[in-house]
Amino acid sequence: MTTTSDGSRRRFLRQTAAIGATFGGVVATRDALAQESPLVVPPWTKTPGLPLSEGNYGMPSPFEKNVVRRGRKDYRMPGSGSIMTPHGNLRGTITPSGLVFERSHGGVPEVDPAQHRLVIHGLVRQPLIFTMDDIVRFPSVSKIHFLECSGNTSQGWMNRPATVQLSHGLLSSCEWTGVMLSTILDEAGVAPNASWLIAEGADSAGLNRSIPIAKCLEDTMLVYAQNGEALRPENGYPLRLLLPGWEGNMSIKWVRRLRLASEPAMTRWETAMYTESMPDGTARQFTFVMEAKSVITDPAPERPLRAHGFMEIRGIAWSGNGRIKRVDVSTDGGRNWRQAELHDPVLNRALTRFTLPWQWKGEPALIMSRAMDETGYVQPTHRQLVAVRGTANRYHYNAIQPWQIAGDGKVTNVFA
Amino acid sequence: MTTTSDGSRRRFLRQTAAIGATFGGVVATRDALAQESPLVVPPWTKTPGLPLSEGNYGMPSPFEKNVVRRGRKDYRMPGSGSIMTPHGNLRGTITPSGLVFERSHGGVPEVDPAQHRLVIHGLVRQPLIFTMDDIVRFPSVSKIHFLECSGNTSQGWMNRPATVQLSHGLLSSCEWTGVMLSTILDEAGVAPNASWLIAEGADSAGLNRSIPIAKCLEDTMLVYAQNGEALRPENGYPLRLLLPGWEGNMSIKWVRRLRLASEPAMTRWETAMYTESMPDGTARQFTFVMEAKSVITDPAPERPLRAHGFMEIRGIAWSGNGRIKRVDVSTDGGRNWRQAELHDPVLNRALTRFTLPWQWKGEPALIMSRAMDETGYVQPTHRQLVAVRGTANRYHYNAIQPWQIAGDGKVTNVFA
Repeated sequence: MTTTSDGSRRRFLRQTAAIGATFGGVVATRDALAQESPLVVPPWTKTPGLPLSEGNYGMPSPFEKNVVRRGRKDYRMPGSGSIMTPHGNLRGTITPSGLVFERSHGGVPEVDPAQHRLVIHGLVRQPLIFTMDDIVRFPSVSKIHFLECSGNTSQGWMNRPATVQLSHGLLSSCEWTGVMLSTILDEAGVAPNASWLIAEGADSAGLNRSIPIAKCLEDTMLVYAQNGEALRPENGYPLRLLLPGWEGNMSIKWVRRLRLASEPAMTRWETAMYTESMPDGTARQFTFVMEAKSVITDPAPERPLRAHGFMEIRGIAWSGNGRIKRVDVSTDGGRNWRQAELHDPVLNRALTRFTLPWQWKGEPALIMSRAMDETGYVQPTHRQLVAVRGTANRYHYNAIQPWQIAGDGKVTNVFA
Repeated sequence: MTTTSDGSRRRFLRQTAAIGATFGGVVATRDALAQESPLVVPPWTKTPGLPLSEGNYGMPSPFEKNVVRRGRKDYRMPGSGSIMTPHGNLRGTITPSGLVFERSHGGVPEVDPAQHRLVIHGLVRQPLIFTMDDIVRFPSVSKIHFLECSGNTSQGWMNRPATVQLSHGLLSSCEWTGVMLSTILDEAGVAPNASWLIAEGADSAGLNRSIPIAKCLEDTMLVYAQNGEALRPENGYPLRLLLPGWEGNMSIKWVRRLRLASEPAMTRWETAMYTESMPDGTARQFTFVMEAKSVITDPAPERPLRAHGFMEIRGIAWSGNGRIKRVDVSTDGGRNWRQAELHDPVLNRALTRFTLPWQWKGEPALIMSRAMDETGYVQPTHRQLVAVRGTANRYHYNAIQPWQIAGDGKVTNVFA
């Protein structure tokens, strides 16, 4: 069910004149429109348009040139840093490949697919080396999954997110095509004492992570295509791992090595980095799953309110533990909650759209969304999360995001 | 169910050595791989990679530069023609926006969204003009649907398709976001005697089509986003119609006018064009629905076979009448058929992936796929289709596509 209820339709209907008046749109009179051509004929109708872009890869309209990835460079290593998906300008659940977030620790390698090799060795019956042609011949799957950096929304620990892009932009969603890792492991033959897989990338950082064998056999993919086309260079071309629902750095890009072992490798990426400093001075390690989260993307700092009357609150929700079961929305700072509509298809470990009709009459309002996944887990508030994990942490922030709407329609983050 | 059966896995396992030997990949020995670094360290691992593409819209790898739209220009009008999606190089069910097919009758207009207006008038209670801001405020939906030109696979009438791209490339699939047209019609109030909607584009061709009101109320959308981002200019930026499952030209791009009427307008696009010449000299008009079709995309002319042994036959199937129910595949010219696996999610009026494991031992083979949709309709053979519709037709060809595999692995179209 994705159409509005009769009640909200009637409410919207009564608002029509106000929309036109406020937005500068003209609600034409019956007389004016009785003529055949009440519209001004715009200049682009009067001349032939641009030629077909034959032989070129298509690009967005020049009017959308500000919808790009932005973020932070990390000068400790050339090419390293992260740039974010502009969710405050997007609609739907698929992230176009050209806007998928980038997180790199050693820049983007220019891998020649004809030269690329994947090795599987260690505790296996038969070590193997694969070309890309070999990999593509295996039985294939296509799955829509989100991919999220464990540092996504990390500004929330300091409660200072500025925009949806800068707070929630280390998150993207694609249709991924490749082969189940279990198929490849089956081919090599996993030894009974192999309980971890150490995966290594071909980038200059040589990023490597230890993955429990159970996740490898459950739903991990070796991916070579994203949104129908070959993986993008910054997303791991020509081959990457994808661990649905787990922190993004484990989905090793440009993957070249899979080593089966009886112990985790304790690499710098799971000791010096990607661990969580707790209030008692200890660190949480191997915190793999990205827990349930949601964010309102409209209205949002990128999308202020420009008129009173009917509107639709829209957002996205996701969980590394499965499907989203329910999203509630509050427009009064969390005192009252209404259940939002979830839009089909609600897929496993994928972005789910939610919407809720709302009448805004110009009053200041504090809006927020709260996701629940199919395990029953409920997205916490900032206070609840900080009470357990403190504020020295950099990763796995997943608290409710409040947006303050001012009387003039401007939207900002507030402490709540 | 998207993993292979145990049986096919075992078959593949026995082929492993052959794959390595034939493709030039190395099936490493246990001894060589007992060392920590059996792989050559490639040059891109030895130096920092490229910087993040901050502020830029991302592009495919230079190694994929041949994966672009190609097609035919139509010199009768500047900017007109059609260029096709390279399905012979794609994988999955989403078409990336930069590769969505283009069909234009007057070039691509450069529409300023701030200046664009949509009018609804004619047999309505309240004529209305909307800005883009108005449109976006209405309750929104996101749906994955295919979009197909009625001229797609028209080379089949002459039985001369060359590649998947040039035969089946006037077909794409996106996640579309917008508002249900029924919501907008509800706002204007459709008069009881309004049985058709005449939709007109803002391009220089002023393409306009008559749409039965039932389709408008059933599932037609006013779309402003595609694969999460704003519509691409060549696909109707900033606003288009989308009639799921119906011939593409009716999904009016750059839509500026919706006029409710009691009769179809009999525009040149539904009289001089987009009608079908039948063997008896009459013409079929208003043939809206794109009936069930399928095509094998691997192997295909773009993807010859390069090794004997296990492989996976892969393709896509779709129907304008609903969900795909079943796809059968033959590897012996249609004498014997095996049921292919359909991959989730199987969505309404959307591309559905199918796969079938196959052993190829170097014998010449004639492979083909046959789709059945949920209405029970079965994709016809070329002979069956031509027997009814003749060969003077240009549109709505949907016959089974046979590919001939030669002993050297080359794949070509044949008459079958």
